[in-house]
Amino acid sequence: MERNQTLNTIFDRASYRGRYKDEPVPREDMKLILKAGLAAPSGCNRQTTSLVAVDEPALLEEIRRIFPKPSCQTAPALILVFTQKIASIDGRFYHVQDYGAAIENMLLAMKSLGYDTCWYEGNVRSCANELAALMGAPEETELVCVLPVGKAAEELHRVSKKAFEERAWFNGYGR
Amino acid sequence: MERNQTLNTIFDRASYRGRYKDEPVPREDMKLILKAGLAAPSGCNRQTTSLVAVDEPALLEEIRRIFPKPSCQTAPALILVFTQKIASIDGRFYHVQDYGAAIENMLLAMKSLGYDTCWYEGNVRSCANELAALMGAPEETELVCVLPVGKAAEELHRVSKKAFEERAWFNGYGR
Repeated sequence: MERNQTLNTIFDRASYRGRYKDEPVPREDMKLILKAGLAAPSGCNRQTTSLVAVDEPALLEEIRRIFPKPSCQTAPALILVFTQKIASIDGRFYHVQDYGAAIENMLLAMKSLGYDTCWYEGNVRSCANELAALMGAPEETELVCVLPVGKAAEELHRVSKKAFEERAWFNGYGR
Repeated sequence: MERNQTLNTIFDRASYRGRYKDEPVPREDMKLILKAGLAAPSGCNRQTTSLVAVDEPALLEEIRRIFPKPSCQTAPALILVFTQKIASIDGRFYHVQDYGAAIENMLLAMKSLGYDTCWYEGNVRSCANELAALMGAPEETELVCVLPVGKAAEELHRVSKKAFEERAWFNGYGR
């Protein structure tokens, strides 16, 4: 079977933590990236994920002060991912799965448009409330992730991963 | 900005719950779909997601008996998604985000190769242990999702979603 662009995007994507080029991200591209995030499925279609894109220089500066991750210092735009814990029909919560899928869609949309990014989640926890307040987000939402958006100015470094045979099999676990 | 195939795949994907055509899925395609799942990022690169593809007729029959979802009755192949709760560097768990991203990659890989599927998670819970035992999965793993794989024999029905303006904004929540 031949590969296609979607598969190439999936296989070429890698987390980028370097500097970004000083080039603004056009609003048209940002909107496509946000729409890609919103196009992800969600448990019982609860659509628990919401997004704020930031490209205003003064606001970017404030975020960079609160969340001083090196690669966010040079990124010309950021996307802040919010979730809302809404119960599904079965009473369970699928909001983490929902934003996981939405973020993955945005990572791929960015890659396909020539941008690189990194999924910052654990690092965001300590300043999530401050960033959410700055955005004017309602109390029932939670800021869970920050994604830089921009053109990479450095090379991508790929993490090494386990072999296929250690994580996937046919017709039985570990076969 | 022009759309590209990756974006089209993201926007065209929808959950499919109908019947499948009686056409086997070539192993080459199955491997690409599994590889796409494993190519997703994971918190601290813990690679908590593992996958079992099923295409043996007798094993498919057993799964269909345990998990009698209509669309799985006709799908010529299934992918079972397993997770493992491994702590990240910060002591927190990101395994749900990890498999959310891995599943989304597989949904998109399938779509790009002409297959349709549906993310079955909530429905799987009540029979997850039985299915995991049938697969010979180790105790430290948990079966979280079943994905049918095949060519749709019926039309795709798209769920309606909130407008972009209700879920995404620039430079401030709800602006």
